[in-house]
Amino acid sequence: MKIALLGGTGNLGKGLAVRLSLLGYEVIVGSRREEKALRLAEEYSEVAGVKVKGAVNGEAAKLCDIAFFTIPWEHAFTTAESLREELRNKVVVSPLVPMKKENGVFTYVRLPEGSAAEKIAQILDSKVVSAFHSVPAARFADLNEKIDWDLPFCGDDDKAKAIVAELAEKMGFRVLDAGPLRNSSLLESVTPLIINIMARNKNGELTIKFV
Amino acid sequence: MKIALLGGTGNLGKGLAVRLSLLGYEVIVGSRREEKALRLAEEYSEVAGVKVKGAVNGEAAKLCDIAFFTIPWEHAFTTAESLREELRNKVVVSPLVPMKKENGVFTYVRLPEGSAAEKIAQILDSKVVSAFHSVPAARFADLNEKIDWDLPFCGDDDKAKAIVAELAEKMGFRVLDAGPLRNSSLLESVTPLIINIMARNKNGELTIKFV
Repeated sequence: MKIALLGGTGNLGKGLAVRLSLLGYEVIVGSRREEKALRLAEEYSEVAGVKVKGAVNGEAAKLCDIAFFTIPWEHAFTTAESLREELRNKVVVSPLVPMKKENGVFTYVRLPEGSAAEKIAQILDSKVVSAFHSVPAARFADLNEKIDWDLPFCGDDDKAKAIVAELAEKMGFRVLDAGPLRNSSLLESVTPLIINIMARNKNGELTIKFV
Repeated sequence: MKIALLGGTGNLGKGLAVRLSLLGYEVIVGSRREEKALRLAEEYSEVAGVKVKGAVNGEAAKLCDIAFFTIPWEHAFTTAESLREELRNKVVVSPLVPMKKENGVFTYVRLPEGSAAEKIAQILDSKVVSAFHSVPAARFADLNEKIDWDLPFCGDDDKAKAIVAELAEKMGFRVLDAGPLRNSSLLESVTPLIINIMARNKNGELTIKFV
């Protein structure tokens, strides 16, 4: 199974690239600029000890079976518009969290579509699964960190949800079905909550567990 | 310190009444009807082995230093309007979560004021702290259950926040400051997320931990 990490340049992209490659998935790191994609692919290949490909986003989207929108949310929607054909009928994972900082406080930006994942689903003709929002990215990118975190996810296509759940479980997550895609704002808004808590309490990078 | 549980009839009210009484706080269970308040107070007194008082909401609000709005959110705002004088300058705790169920899915009801706690703060002339939303109420009401859960909270009055944090810590919670009151919707919307996850995954009653 081929997995594209569109704009997979941050720690979430790095963690997914390395961990999924090590599990035997064929990973393609996408970027707007080919040289950046190739540079990152080389970096991730070295960490993983397994070949990670690099390509411009359009090529990565064309080649893949599953695409992750590991891209800042402000750029995600124009990227989605440019990749409608390449991503048609494919599984698309949205870890997007529309967020802004105002006077030291992180707030969740409510989109007219309800959530970032629902907006992506409206733009694309793909099977969108909303997941991976609250993964602590720096810890996730560190292979020494054992993943036993919870991964709540939601979506409207059961097959697509099962595919994404399997990927996540293989990486160590406990997956928790949170219902249809219209629940995505509930998932997305956990991230600014965590960041506000991290800013005021000295516990390092946090995620949540359902106990 | 005197604590009123306004409409403290559910499991959250019961858990607070019993656990706070056992810690030495003077608890007054409030209800719209006096006979119900007295009946519940008697029931909670028996469980706690300590005297819990009962009174109509207005009397409970007048007597207390801190009031918890342990009341269904649909009735909370009219109750608040009727208790403005009694609660003036006091600490008010809002565990309110505006929520509705549509086609088997729980959604967070977004109020024009931003959140239930902000609406309560607009109605009252009190020091509102938003907390206790995601406490698993049935487990909380069961004294055999050891509390080592997280309690994220927010508010604009630091003194009031410290008072509520101390109460919670004494009960066993790890308290986590989540910032000003305008962050309350981030806290409140965790509850429908948890309920949606509980409905689809067989893990019993859940809460969240920040790890």
